[in-house]
Amino acid sequence: MAQRPSIPKGTRDFSPEEMAKRNYIFNTIRDVYHLYGFQQIETPSMEMLSTLMGKYGDEGDKLLFKIQNSGDYFSGLTDEELLSRNAAKLASKFCEKGLRYDLTVPFARYVVMHRDEISFPFKRYQIQPVWRADRPQKGRYREFYQCDADVVGSDSLLNEVELMQIVDTVFTRFGIRVCIKINNRKILTGIAEIIGEADKIVDITVAIDKLDKIGLDNVNAELRAKGISDEAIEKLQPIILLSGTNDEKLQTLKTVLAESETGMKGVEETDFILSTLKSLQIKNELELDLTLARGLNYYTGAIFEVKALDVQIGSITGGGRYDNLTGVFGLPGVSGVGISFGADRIFDVLNQLNLYPKDAVNGTTLLFINFGQAETTFSLQLLAKVRAAGIRAEVFPDAAKMKKQMSYANAKKIPFVALVGETEMQEGKLTLKNMETGDQSLLSVEEAIGVIKG
Amino acid sequence: MAQRPSIPKGTRDFSPEEMAKRNYIFNTIRDVYHLYGFQQIETPSMEMLSTLMGKYGDEGDKLLFKIQNSGDYFSGLTDEELLSRNAAKLASKFCEKGLRYDLTVPFARYVVMHRDEISFPFKRYQIQPVWRADRPQKGRYREFYQCDADVVGSDSLLNEVELMQIVDTVFTRFGIRVCIKINNRKILTGIAEIIGEADKIVDITVAIDKLDKIGLDNVNAELRAKGISDEAIEKLQPIILLSGTNDEKLQTLKTVLAESETGMKGVEETDFILSTLKSLQIKNELELDLTLARGLNYYTGAIFEVKALDVQIGSITGGGRYDNLTGVFGLPGVSGVGISFGADRIFDVLNQLNLYPKDAVNGTTLLFINFGQAETTFSLQLLAKVRAAGIRAEVFPDAAKMKKQMSYANAKKIPFVALVGETEMQEGKLTLKNMETGDQSLLSVEEAIGVIKG
Repeated sequence: MAQRPSIPKGTRDFSPEEMAKRNYIFNTIRDVYHLYGFQQIETPSMEMLSTLMGKYGDEGDKLLFKIQNSGDYFSGLTDEELLSRNAAKLASKFCEKGLRYDLTVPFARYVVMHRDEISFPFKRYQIQPVWRADRPQKGRYREFYQCDADVVGSDSLLNEVELMQIVDTVFTRFGIRVCIKINNRKILTGIAEIIGEADKIVDITVAIDKLDKIGLDNVNAELRAKGISDEAIEKLQPIILLSGTNDEKLQTLKTVLAESETGMKGVEETDFILSTLKSLQIKNELELDLTLARGLNYYTGAIFEVKALDVQIGSITGGGRYDNLTGVFGLPGVSGVGISFGADRIFDVLNQLNLYPKDAVNGTTLLFINFGQAETTFSLQLLAKVRAAGIRAEVFPDAAKMKKQMSYANAKKIPFVALVGETEMQEGKLTLKNMETGDQSLLSVEEAIGVIKG
Repeated sequence: MAQRPSIPKGTRDFSPEEMAKRNYIFNTIRDVYHLYGFQQIETPSMEMLSTLMGKYGDEGDKLLFKIQNSGDYFSGLTDEELLSRNAAKLASKFCEKGLRYDLTVPFARYVVMHRDEISFPFKRYQIQPVWRADRPQKGRYREFYQCDADVVGSDSLLNEVELMQIVDTVFTRFGIRVCIKINNRKILTGIAEIIGEADKIVDITVAIDKLDKIGLDNVNAELRAKGISDEAIEKLQPIILLSGTNDEKLQTLKTVLAESETGMKGVEETDFILSTLKSLQIKNELELDLTLARGLNYYTGAIFEVKALDVQIGSITGGGRYDNLTGVFGLPGVSGVGISFGADRIFDVLNQLNLYPKDAVNGTTLLFINFGQAETTFSLQLLAKVRAAGIRAEVFPDAAKMKKQMSYANAKKIPFVALVGETEMQEGKLTLKNMETGDQSLLSVEEAIGVIKG
């Protein structure tokens, strides 16, 4: 007896309904990317391990899915090596390929390999799965999609502005109210410079982030516990207490960071991005948030993060500017800025807020009931006309009991059913039933198309 | 110095232009699948090896990409096992997961696992990559997409009819003229029954296929060489020489196969499929072709294959009816019928015949030239209106030399360029340049939208 099959832990099957919802998400993002002149690329699922290893830290290397070499992968291994049973070390002998871990490293590899074909600035987007051998848990999968857009080969802040316009447009189309949080690595560097504690950026942002919860005294105590001097903590006070509008915050920062060239550059950049976005009347909230410290070992300028306002969930989109994307592959000087939509979390938010448009999720619009061969032969002609009008339609393939056919229509949430029996055949018509209201009427196929479409 | 990176052999990067073409192909197929009530599913890239192994023959098992287990995969292996260096045997200890080899086995696994959620008949389609560790060669890749549609849980021949309508509609939309070849496994079984040579079906179809090239005498000689008796060869003559219209062929077969119940069933089924398709006035050629013998150890009824008429290339779509899709996973009695479009070959055919519609392949429609910050700030407002009208547009992010910006427009094949300088800003307008004709005119943004759209 065959065993009931299963799928690898941390992976998922997607049902028709889930796929319709996911396609709605991907298509919305894709349409907006196109509207802004981004072009899609795809890279292979497998990359050489030499491309992937060492790019995500030691922890990341461990999370790579490695693909066993074909053929005799034992050749060249000594008995000693084998008997050492050193899994980590021997993996590199057994495997030369791995599944991609993100879309950024393959993109960097792509830019280097195809630099002669690319016209820079290169505005590319990529929507593909990535794989991580992470411990699976709620909301964390071993295979999941990323939806990245990056502009490389341009230092212009217009790219930051456009990416935030994209974020604003995408979430407006979804109907999800969000707060777009913006920070700048240079501001954080400036703060560290001013207080003379360059290596404490993360401690500082973590402590500031707790202000609402634990109060100023406790924040200061925490900073002190992290080894930050009283003098530095004193200088940090206006930054910890930073509040008001974005303009007010920028004013304060201009005062506090006046002595730091890097810090002032960060303020200026942020000012440009925020004021330009304001002039473009974007629909969602924009907030300068100094506690935003994602990707600090990676981002060099603007840092973005998007939070949904009406649902308790982590960041649903993020990104930032980086220097030297491709240096590790021998092509220095390619900087860029990018964003990544978190499709799985957006899926959850749309579900929780019940925001999927009906026609995005529905499949078939019209089902012809099957009363037997003569009726079906006649129905096929009508069906061809209905489909030519762009209506998704099908005929139940078997002359099954009415009840079975109707429950098929219900299960697939098909809104209209066509009944074609002897009367209808004689008149060259069909009886159209609205599955929601229960209304039935005898119509020509053209009339039926009108009803369904209108 | 970093090494110039590469990608695993047999895999590909897809450039923006290639992706646009591929999306055109997938979207066309997807739209038609939807029109016929098919619903998309996706399955994980990785399946348990226990799901995959033994389903594709010994040769297939060798072509599976296996994924190395995480952690200590040496545990439980004796010194003897390790030193045996038996790659094939030890692979199963090192690996429990593999990349999917096709979409059929994962689909069967899906049906079994989700049978309680599915309303049968289940019309599913799936467009995902598959992986095979085959020796790469021209047109054969280690990662490639399949585009399958299947109906399971219905024996009705209407499913065969609809799948052929789908094939007809898809290739009509592509503008590719094709011949849809149909055969039936039951006819082939009937032929073998009649001549008493049940195991010689393949030899017979191969020999018949050579009639045009080598002539009747040589075909008969080849059959004799394959050990087929003179009496059987005598009986085969009307089948080898089968010609004329589909109706004429069916008439001949009805005579020849009169004694074989299975054969007559095959004739009847084929008659129904062909005559129903004829009544639906499908646009492409339909041909009953007895030499069609694909998937003989798999298909049990209709067999399909599609050939392009204007390009020398193998089959570009195929499929057929099968019994017992899911028996191997412990769920007997699920039969079905399916087709699979060969996306890579369709890509080549569309390229060779230059059939891609212009707007399917083009990206950005309008580029705003960047003359500096004041002009760009103004342009961003116009840009927002242009995009709101659904036009794909971008601004060159840097105030680079005109020549560089223009060659960017040319490289991306952008048909319109907007020039916004002092005059335009004063008048609140833009100068629209048609990149093909070179025509320029000063227009309001609304006028420009009209010109671009119309």
